[in-house]
Amino acid sequence: MRQLEEYVDSDVIIVGGGPSGLVAGRELGKTGLKVLIIERNNYLGGGFWIGGYFMNKITLRAPAQEILDELNVPYSKASEGLYVADAPHACSKLIGAAGDAGVKFLQLTLLEDLVVRDDNRVAGVVVNWSPIAYLPKEVSALDPIPLETKVVIDATGHDACVAKKLEQRGVLKLAGEGALWIEKSEEAVVEHTGEVYPGLVVAGMAVATVYGLPRMGPTFGSMLFSGKRAAEVAIEILQQLKVS
Amino acid sequence: MRQLEEYVDSDVIIVGGGPSGLVAGRELGKTGLKVLIIERNNYLGGGFWIGGYFMNKITLRAPAQEILDELNVPYSKASEGLYVADAPHACSKLIGAAGDAGVKFLQLTLLEDLVVRDDNRVAGVVVNWSPIAYLPKEVSALDPIPLETKVVIDATGHDACVAKKLEQRGVLKLAGEGALWIEKSEEAVVEHTGEVYPGLVVAGMAVATVYGLPRMGPTFGSMLFSGKRAAEVAIEILQQLKVS
Amino acid sequence: MRQLEEYVDSDVIIVGGGPSGLVAGRELGKTGLKVLIIERNNYLGGGFWIGGYFMNKITLRAPAQEILDELNVPYSKASEGLYVADAPHACSKLIGAAGDAGVKFLQLTLLEDLVVRDDNRVAGVVVNWSPIAYLPKEVSALDPIPLETKVVIDATGHDACVAKKLEQRGVLKLAGEGALWIEKSEEAVVEHTGEVYPGLVVAGMAVATVYGLPRMGPTFGSMLFSGKRAAEVAIEILQQLKVS
Amino acid sequence: MRQLEEYVDSDVIIVGGGPSGLVAGRELGKTGLKVLIIERNNYLGGGFWIGGYFMNKITLRAPAQEILDELNVPYSKASEGLYVADAPHACSKLIGAAGDAGVKFLQLTLLEDLVVRDDNRVAGVVVNWSPIAYLPKEVSALDPIPLETKVVIDATGHDACVAKKLEQRGVLKLAGEGALWIEKSEEAVVEHTGEVYPGLVVAGMAVATVYGLPRMGPTFGSMLFSGKRAAEVAIEILQQLKVS
Amino acid sequence: MRQLEEYVDSDVIIVGGGPSGLVAGRELGKTGLKVLIIERNNYLGGGFWIGGYFMNKITLRAPAQEILDELNVPYSKASEGLYVADAPHACSKLIGAAGDAGVKFLQLTLLEDLVVRDDNRVAGVVVNWSPIAYLPKEVSALDPIPLETKVVIDATGHDACVAKKLEQRGVLKLAGEGALWIEKSEEAVVEHTGEVYPGLVVAGMAVATVYGLPRMGPTFGSMLFSGKRAAEVAIEILQQLKVS
Amino acid sequence: MRQLEEYVDSDVIIVGGGPSGLVAGRELGKTGLKVLIIERNNYLGGGFWIGGYFMNKITLRAPAQEILDELNVPYSKASEGLYVADAPHACSKLIGAAGDAGVKFLQLTLLEDLVVRDDNRVAGVVVNWSPIAYLPKEVSALDPIPLETKVVIDATGHDACVAKKLEQRGVLKLAGEGALWIEKSEEAVVEHTGEVYPGLVVAGMAVATVYGLPRMGPTFGSMLFSGKRAAEVAIEILQQLKVS
Amino acid sequence: MRQLEEYVDSDVIIVGGGPSGLVAGRELGKTGLKVLIIERNNYLGGGFWIGGYFMNKITLRAPAQEILDELNVPYSKASEGLYVADAPHACSKLIGAAGDAGVKFLQLTLLEDLVVRDDNRVAGVVVNWSPIAYLPKEVSALDPIPLETKVVIDATGHDACVAKKLEQRGVLKLAGEGALWIEKSEEAVVEHTGEVYPGLVVAGMAVATVYGLPRMGPTFGSMLFSGKRAAEVAIEILQQLKVS
Amino acid sequence: MRQLEEYVDSDVIIVGGGPSGLVAGRELGKTGLKVLIIERNNYLGGGFWIGGYFMNKITLRAPAQEILDELNVPYSKASEGLYVADAPHACSKLIGAAGDAGVKFLQLTLLEDLVVRDDNRVAGVVVNWSPIAYLPKEVSALDPIPLETKVVIDATGHDACVAKKLEQRGVLKLAGEGALWIEKSEEAVVEHTGEVYPGLVVAGMAVATVYGLPRMGPTFGSMLFSGKRAAEVAIEILQQLKVS
Repeated sequence: MRQLEEYVDSDVIIVGGGPSGLVAGRELGKTGLKVLIIERNNYLGGGFWIGGYFMNKITLRAPAQEILDELNVPYSKASEGLYVADAPHACSKLIGAAGDAGVKFLQLTLLEDLVVRDDNRVAGVVVNWSPIAYLPKEVSALDPIPLETKVVIDATGHDACVAKKLEQRGVLKLAGEGALWIEKSEEAVVEHTGEVYPGLVVAGMAVATVYGLPRMGPTFGSMLFSGKRAAEVAIEILQQLKVS
Repeated sequence: MRQLEEYVDSDVIIVGGGPSGLVAGRELGKTGLKVLIIERNNYLGGGFWIGGYFMNKITLRAPAQEILDELNVPYSKASEGLYVADAPHACSKLIGAAGDAGVKFLQLTLLEDLVVRDDNRVAGVVVNWSPIAYLPKEVSALDPIPLETKVVIDATGHDACVAKKLEQRGVLKLAGEGALWIEKSEEAVVEHTGEVYPGLVVAGMAVATVYGLPRMGPTFGSMLFSGKRAAEVAIEILQQLKVS
Repeated sequence: MRQLEEYVDSDVIIVGGGPSGLVAGRELGKTGLKVLIIERNNYLGGGFWIGGYFMNKITLRAPAQEILDELNVPYSKASEGLYVADAPHACSKLIGAAGDAGVKFLQLTLLEDLVVRDDNRVAGVVVNWSPIAYLPKEVSALDPIPLETKVVIDATGHDACVAKKLEQRGVLKLAGEGALWIEKSEEAVVEHTGEVYPGLVVAGMAVATVYGLPRMGPTFGSMLFSGKRAAEVAIEILQQLKVS
Repeated sequence: MRQLEEYVDSDVIIVGGGPSGLVAGRELGKTGLKVLIIERNNYLGGGFWIGGYFMNKITLRAPAQEILDELNVPYSKASEGLYVADAPHACSKLIGAAGDAGVKFLQLTLLEDLVVRDDNRVAGVVVNWSPIAYLPKEVSALDPIPLETKVVIDATGHDACVAKKLEQRGVLKLAGEGALWIEKSEEAVVEHTGEVYPGLVVAGMAVATVYGLPRMGPTFGSMLFSGKRAAEVAIEILQQLKVS
Repeated sequence: MRQLEEYVDSDVIIVGGGPSGLVAGRELGKTGLKVLIIERNNYLGGGFWIGGYFMNKITLRAPAQEILDELNVPYSKASEGLYVADAPHACSKLIGAAGDAGVKFLQLTLLEDLVVRDDNRVAGVVVNWSPIAYLPKEVSALDPIPLETKVVIDATGHDACVAKKLEQRGVLKLAGEGALWIEKSEEAVVEHTGEVYPGLVVAGMAVATVYGLPRMGPTFGSMLFSGKRAAEVAIEILQQLKVS
Repeated sequence: MRQLEEYVDSDVIIVGGGPSGLVAGRELGKTGLKVLIIERNNYLGGGFWIGGYFMNKITLRAPAQEILDELNVPYSKASEGLYVADAPHACSKLIGAAGDAGVKFLQLTLLEDLVVRDDNRVAGVVVNWSPIAYLPKEVSALDPIPLETKVVIDATGHDACVAKKLEQRGVLKLAGEGALWIEKSEEAVVEHTGEVYPGLVVAGMAVATVYGLPRMGPTFGSMLFSGKRAAEVAIEILQQLKVS
Repeated sequence: MRQLEEYVDSDVIIVGGGPSGLVAGRELGKTGLKVLIIERNNYLGGGFWIGGYFMNKITLRAPAQEILDELNVPYSKASEGLYVADAPHACSKLIGAAGDAGVKFLQLTLLEDLVVRDDNRVAGVVVNWSPIAYLPKEVSALDPIPLETKVVIDATGHDACVAKKLEQRGVLKLAGEGALWIEKSEEAVVEHTGEVYPGLVVAGMAVATVYGLPRMGPTFGSMLFSGKRAAEVAIEILQQLKVS
Repeated sequence: MRQLEEYVDSDVIIVGGGPSGLVAGRELGKTGLKVLIIERNNYLGGGFWIGGYFMNKITLRAPAQEILDELNVPYSKASEGLYVADAPHACSKLIGAAGDAGVKFLQLTLLEDLVVRDDNRVAGVVVNWSPIAYLPKEVSALDPIPLETKVVIDATGHDACVAKKLEQRGVLKLAGEGALWIEKSEEAVVEHTGEVYPGLVVAGMAVATVYGLPRMGPTFGSMLFSGKRAAEVAIEILQQLKVS
């Protein structure tokens, strides 16, 4: 209980500790904002550790390699405009950089519900200890905990877990995966990154789920840029909140 | 297949990517040696991500905080000689530092067997893709691959997987967990870190299993120092090999 | 069969042997009413044994500590108006007190259906031996047994199992968990405790499910007071039945 | 962690919170000794809640009903010298009485190992949080905790979990269930209750396993008396320890 | 394949080899009709072997004991108008009597679909070997076989498997279990036994499911009489078919 | 409990209700002896219901068809000396005939142990309710019950469950399946049927397991004759017991 | 990745490597078209290996034996117009013949989605590695791959997996199995083989699912002819595409 | 039953339908011998369908490509002396060629035991239907069937199932996998192919298990040649049998 106190007071809560969530967290943290990343697994980084094809490498299209430069991660040029880096090296450096920027992490943490105020605004998350999913009912009776905040970012990947909570309440409609067939889905993910409900920003592959973009398009580069864009949108929302 | 080529030629192979293996790898990498860490999971760091009590914190007794200083990980003083750091921050920085030192990583990789030459010396590992354990027999017929090297470090934790392969062949006897009851088991782990069979060094909690030290004693501090010690021992072995 | 005879004739049947059901049972028993508590598990007390955070402690806000005084359970003051007691001690004393008040218990008993008379009134429960859920179909063919009574109390916690049986028949609509976001959900649970359908009273966390109160609010104190309130409501219903 | 401090300093640790362990704990607690009962389940009482035949009743042969008198549990006479009581009432009153006597309880706690000193004496238990057995390996890495004490009582029933730990170390040999066929096994359990290794007392059905008594004989009466006997033996051991 | 030939040509197919199906089969067989009983399990008799309460006894209300007289099964009088017999003795004698009457049996046989002709009449069953449900998909590709007949009797108990196939096609609506609460459900089952769709007769507990009678009422006596009634109805249908 | 009384007093207990056990039981019952058959499943007959090849037919070599004549089961001649009967008809008639001879049945009953007296003689069985194997440990604590008798017959098929209990105690050694290769294993099973330990007779396929006969040889004919032989041996033992 | 290049450029993609898919592939390949067959299992042939009744034989009605003549598979005449062949021989020869005709195979490949262009035309498949279904979520994050083509053939058997993807998008409605009862379902399958949506042809048992034909009718002969017909239809579509 | 008659009379039974078993079968069949291949799966070919690295390709070192020439399977040259072929094409052609040579196949067939005569000679196999492993015990009672023959070839791969049956009887000792470390294990497999017990020849990877060769060495080329060698050895044994 006491241990949670340091996490209670935050400006932005990011759900999902994969690449887009980590980049968003780092960008926000660098501006001095209080950021908390909650993650279902025991580790951070998600699928970033092994890349998209079990090959331990990540491939990035220009200009995404500039983010690797920021993180001091070495890479090689595979072909014109295509760069390859060791996935575990890039992944650990990105997490470390988020931590250096002051981001706090809460792993083994499951999103159970959202705090939605009377003014129809997402104002926090309700979380629980994720391992209780494995426990028998008699022992799993652990009460969830609300964490209030100003902006929530859904960086939970294809599952779009946060957006789906709003769909269950009937206030948001997801297009479903693969509804649209567009060639440039990688760019589309970055372009569609944004606020989908007052107080909720979607980033990374969750964008594809919300807007029905085909699954196979977006790559790690677009996830990193989507994270940057999500941070910008969150900052704008926070400024508007301060004004109003 | 081709992807494995860069891993085939190494001076030291470390089995297990937890804290002791990562420190050993970083120390060896800094000297210019070629080091490969193989890890069963998709991510590196093992139990380091959540600490020993699900609290996302690691506790270190002096002078282990000096290693955090090396890694630029912030920490606070809990009491005299006892320091506390954020586990995910420390973990990611340690992995990143090993990568910076040139260590290569191969996750989702299972140790199947050891290469033991006629001269009764461990001369490599035989590995496979760990997810095949989940596949039905018809599909799991993936041939293992031998990776030859000069020194192997067993950093697989309580399981002591590498040492157990030698026990199965009848050339090494493990004491079993908890056989001895000693108060200072934390120090004992560092002291007993060393070569247990020609070409095989044990580090971290694998030391406790080999020598029967009680499980609850050693903490993250001793694992980090054990990793440092294992690197020193491996360098000595490599020097002797060069001489002979 | 014969063993069930002593349970057949009761004034009130309480479904669920957790804190709110036990308090309700004890209050009713003290007035001389015949009370039967049926419980799915082999033991009574439910989540009361370990408290809400696996810590073996229960926390109560004033004036809930007065119920501990009634039960002769020691407690300490954590802060102004906040009291802490050993969970297993409080739990066993509460069960013992219900037994002292003449309450009968039937564990390993599952609610299969409700007896609903032509006058649209809950008039009993249909139960079965709960372990048959684990048996293979061939062996699980155990006929259920009806137990008639005057008032049923749903003290089954978040599942609100009894109320849900009425929802399946289309005569009651549950709001669903977390539909409303209110700060004072603890008090709201006690206030909403009452008769939701002729002959059915809801108590404890089942109230939250019926009215859509957020899950994380209510604590053990409100469950105990909700049990007291449910007993008062049941007594009123019984008096009206006698009159009519 | 902090929460465990109150449990660290005890005179006797009883493993298993069933009837024999509870009686032993209450007797020891009444003398002012510090007693801790650890229990694998979330609740105390074990099979006492449902009796031996799923019938919610316990049957006791005289003079065991005197213990019910001590606990203020009502009972009826089934035949000459045979008494019947409601199992959940008796069970909760016994737990409450142990708590009244100052016994501390630690549920969801698994015995992992024993502390055995150089002087070949059981000097404590090594425990862990029992739900980790349900967790996947990646998340279950919770370090065990040693709890030192002066006497350990094995009240774990047929499993005789504590005695088996000594058998694994090769210092105690269990006879195995049903090795002997004796008619008066109920009395034999009480008679054989005692110290089987320096610092370890066995009580209840664990006695039957250690000495090979047939399983069907002993009943709840003998378990209660065996608990009383175990408390007497433990007090003798503690007095001898004080002398030496 | 060849083995099925003797079953292909039948007047009545009864789905389910429990008490009502067996009685119906025996009655029909005694008139010289060709009857086939198909049964999902490897054995016939269903829940009749153990009775309704795991007690190996069946209880019958007068005049159902007359059926036991017909079968030469001994019984005793429990109270006025209530008779008790050994379940396995009665069960095996009933199966044997059906066989003596010329009934053929096909166990391990699952109903997959119904043959429904253009004239909206059930004209057969489509069956498969029931153990394929346990086989992996690659091996379970066993083609089903149609068995044509004149009348089908649904004696599948609470599941009412045959009637449900018609509900799936939208031509029959089942009331659902427990929709009605009537005291005399035992008699109601016999009264409602009859043709529910051209060519389909329901018998035994399947009647309760089709008409929404409460589950706990009907007993073995009503199942036996329902089987007799189903046979009468089937004979009437066959006579009408011959006429038309 | 009370329900078991009628089973407590028996001359012979047969473990396993398949064809050899049923024939043995019928033969013994016809002489007026008190016989109890205990069976693990809910139904009697075992594999007899479907024959050896899922074909619902049993094949018998002469003169085994004479047993079918005794039971009034029709059969046809497949070739010279080879007869075929409907398996469910034959099976139910055999069970019914055993019941007619006064045999008592106890299904859903598991052999847990044997009663072996000081005079090294099997003097009873210790049984439990077999469905507890499916229940979770917390609920499965059902005390076993001893049933004393004069002779026990092991008719448990290939498992030879009774004989194995003696092997576990080290007083009987089973040859293991398939140790010997003999052509006439069908006759060998009947010849070897007999007493293998004072008070224990083996019958049917259990004989093959005890003596290492090949599994594919014996058929239903030899099982029926082995049951007859076992009855003869049991009668001899009972006569000797009376003499001594 | 590179390994997939040779499969990327194809004229027709056939989903499902059973008999109808193989015949269709062979016919198309013989005309010089580029054909790719994707198959979920590790092997090709599907249920063809064991025939429809576990008997290792396939039965064909005339004139389907002519296809065996083409493949040089021996067969025997069972009765007039009915031919029997060894299933594994016929199956392997058919696969070999498809390979000889230039067909490429991609096993262990799962259909995840379809590429549907703006012009409402199926223009490719989205596939993944089928074993990921067995992997835990953390490791199964393998990105799917689009394979574009001109015509897709659904030869997935009763599941009609490809057609179902269109049903999920609401542009195609399947009749459901067994909706129609027609005697000549074998011929009906061949007659209904054809294009059901621009760019999608259905073949084999998938035809029965789309049009609601009864499952037990069609046999291997109709599957082979349906494959031939599907190839003809695909060629017509390709010619129209070339024209337009 | 009747269906098995054609398989009963054979000269050689090969257990395992992978590449070495298929080549051995084809070679033996070409000489006019009667050969039966039994296979656990529903399909033949084993791991040959996907090659050793999930890549759908097989790699062969010269002169193994000559076997592809015999089978009319196209291949390409990867480097000097190294050839690559499509795995499904090569696999189906090899099975087809074995069928063309008169080999009979029995899939879904499990080896249960061996027939070992008094003269200490393997003289047949005892088999069962492999899917019974998935069935519950009550339904799986399918009697095994002996198939007598003159020579048995163990082509079951790493499991060496046939050789292990002899190890269980204590007449053969397997070295265990990886006991020896030799570089040229591919050649060693072919060299060690031979008779390991009178009447039993080992082929393919079963050779590696029997002699302890490292697992990763042998490839498809050595398996094909080992099959050829096994056929030669079997012919020699048959000639010696004819002589004696």
